[in-house]
Amino acid sequence: MSPFLGVSRASWKNALRMTAEMLGFVKGDEAIVEVTRGDLVESEHLVCYALADADGRVVASRGDIDRLVYLRSSAKPLIATAVVASGAADRFSFSTEEIALSAASHSGEPKHVQTALSMLAKAGLPETALQCGAHAPVHEPSAEALYLSGQRPRAVHNNCSGKHAGILALAVHRGSDPDGYLAADHPAQVEILDVCSRLLDLPLARMRVGVDGCGIPVIAAPLRSTAIFFAKLVDPDRFPREFAPALRRVIAAMTAHPDYVAGTKRFDTDLMTVAQGDVLAKGGAEGYHASAALRRGLGLTVKVADGNYRAVAPLVTNRLKEFGVLDAARMAQLSAYEAPRVRNHAGLVVGEIRIARA
Amino acid sequence: MSPFLGVSRASWKNALRMTAEMLGFVKGDEAIVEVTRGDLVESEHLVCYALADADGRVVASRGDIDRLVYLRSSAKPLIATAVVASGAADRFSFSTEEIALSAASHSGEPKHVQTALSMLAKAGLPETALQCGAHAPVHEPSAEALYLSGQRPRAVHNNCSGKHAGILALAVHRGSDPDGYLAADHPAQVEILDVCSRLLDLPLARMRVGVDGCGIPVIAAPLRSTAIFFAKLVDPDRFPREFAPALRRVIAAMTAHPDYVAGTKRFDTDLMTVAQGDVLAKGGAEGYHASAALRRGLGLTVKVADGNYRAVAPLVTNRLKEFGVLDAARMAQLSAYEAPRVRNHAGLVVGEIRIARA
Repeated sequence: MSPFLGVSRASWKNALRMTAEMLGFVKGDEAIVEVTRGDLVESEHLVCYALADADGRVVASRGDIDRLVYLRSSAKPLIATAVVASGAADRFSFSTEEIALSAASHSGEPKHVQTALSMLAKAGLPETALQCGAHAPVHEPSAEALYLSGQRPRAVHNNCSGKHAGILALAVHRGSDPDGYLAADHPAQVEILDVCSRLLDLPLARMRVGVDGCGIPVIAAPLRSTAIFFAKLVDPDRFPREFAPALRRVIAAMTAHPDYVAGTKRFDTDLMTVAQGDVLAKGGAEGYHASAALRRGLGLTVKVADGNYRAVAPLVTNRLKEFGVLDAARMAQLSAYEAPRVRNHAGLVVGEIRIARA
Repeated sequence: MSPFLGVSRASWKNALRMTAEMLGFVKGDEAIVEVTRGDLVESEHLVCYALADADGRVVASRGDIDRLVYLRSSAKPLIATAVVASGAADRFSFSTEEIALSAASHSGEPKHVQTALSMLAKAGLPETALQCGAHAPVHEPSAEALYLSGQRPRAVHNNCSGKHAGILALAVHRGSDPDGYLAADHPAQVEILDVCSRLLDLPLARMRVGVDGCGIPVIAAPLRSTAIFFAKLVDPDRFPREFAPALRRVIAAMTAHPDYVAGTKRFDTDLMTVAQGDVLAKGGAEGYHASAALRRGLGLTVKVADGNYRAVAPLVTNRLKEFGVLDAARMAQLSAYEAPRVRNHAGLVVGEIRIARA
């Protein structure tokens, strides 16, 4: 097409696009992860993320990073910090595996279940103290084995049972009634929400509190703020001083025992194992994910707009690679997460999940 | 703001938006289904759909309805039609429940499993002829009961086992080797793809063939074409004459036995049950859904862009209500599908799924 007013068609189009973006017409600033089947893109995920440094600068981002988003289980490292900072972990002699489990979305494997039961026993509580509701172990062989042994899933198999055991220990430690510990006005939850607010450097009035899948309060905060929190884990002295020792212990426990933070063949476990202490990772429901590059001092928080977790690992590995956190050797060990294959029920590869725009 | 060149700011903005839309900059023509938690929208699904009449007119639509989209299990009514039209259903004396199951994504409840086994027995085949791969029954109590009885899921529990039994019967009926029936060049699949092409009035060259979750070929076609196919079910004589009797029998079987097309507390089953023969419904994986208003002569095909099935029922019920297919009395019985509640593991309501833009 010939130029109009001496300006090329491409330049007109570009100017129009920029204007349309300014006026907020153009959705689609988000990253895109696509799912193929055969020759076609079958489904597509829009992803918002914030990558920040420990000084609070946003290094890279996509989508709206100032909107309030529930942290879901990515809040567990903060909750575990509250439990440790309170003195409850020392009072009940929690092991590092038990501290890791209190920050976990575990797979309900036998060792996870035993560890949660051990935490309850140390705090002097019966298994029935857990009010997180029951679901089958995320680890399918463990779920099958449970049923095949004639048992049904109990609350201790819930992926959040370690967190609940930690909160219950906090309640016992403070002398408050463990019953009713789910409520937002229970002293244990009030203490946890206050710790979250101070760790995130956000007043509670600027966050929102909802109810998580396991019944406890869950905070919503901007991806920007949570990315900065995870970036600052490079140096816990950047936080209010009363939290620095607890943060160090939670980081050490999670990175020493990645198999207690998620489970067999789970992304967070495999990412932390491969990164050998360089990365702390904690995903949550509805496509939320948080990670920290512990030496580089970078924090990455991700929200898949539609809540589908399958878009998380490709995006997170891509960003950690791009920003130098995961080198080629580590990426080679994480290739199944970078571009996961889509298989049918018979195990045949029928497509893949891949980044279309990071 | 003051007018520029005598044109108001709103008019400029509107003109710019229209131009941007024409140039394809503006995503977001899709319908939107949102998922709330507490006070916030936590996740959001973009949905494309085509609502067409039997004369091929698109009555309403959102998103790109001319892009190729895999039908996934929504192709099953077409496949069942191929099986019946071939004479295989008569040759093996399939009951109406068995015809319904050959168009089903069943829940693996005992009656579904027994019916699939009966189809295989009638065709003279062992259970091991099924090559769909195994997965646990979709119906959780049936899955639990299976494991608690010491058994693992088999291929017959796969939601597609009725379709596979039908295809195997077609292979036996035609005298071709049932082994290898998954391949796109197996005579049974060649026959089925040809029937699909003729029913959709689309040459195979204008479709795409991928591999479905259960291993068989699956066609991709525009939402527009599939919506017209389902609309035309109002009068099977609108199709090539050799298919009209088979189409009538498949429609009759599916609407007479909705409990064989999906299962207990499943959307397609409940929608067809409530509609008492007015609606035929068949969903598929990755957020695909097809339905037919059998008296009104409307067809509705839906694709959730990210593949999440939870957005399907709110959108489908909303559209069927809006276009007069579901009246207030029927909608009252489907309220759990129109705006499903989000519950946590303890059963507490923490949010809802609702239409933001239809």
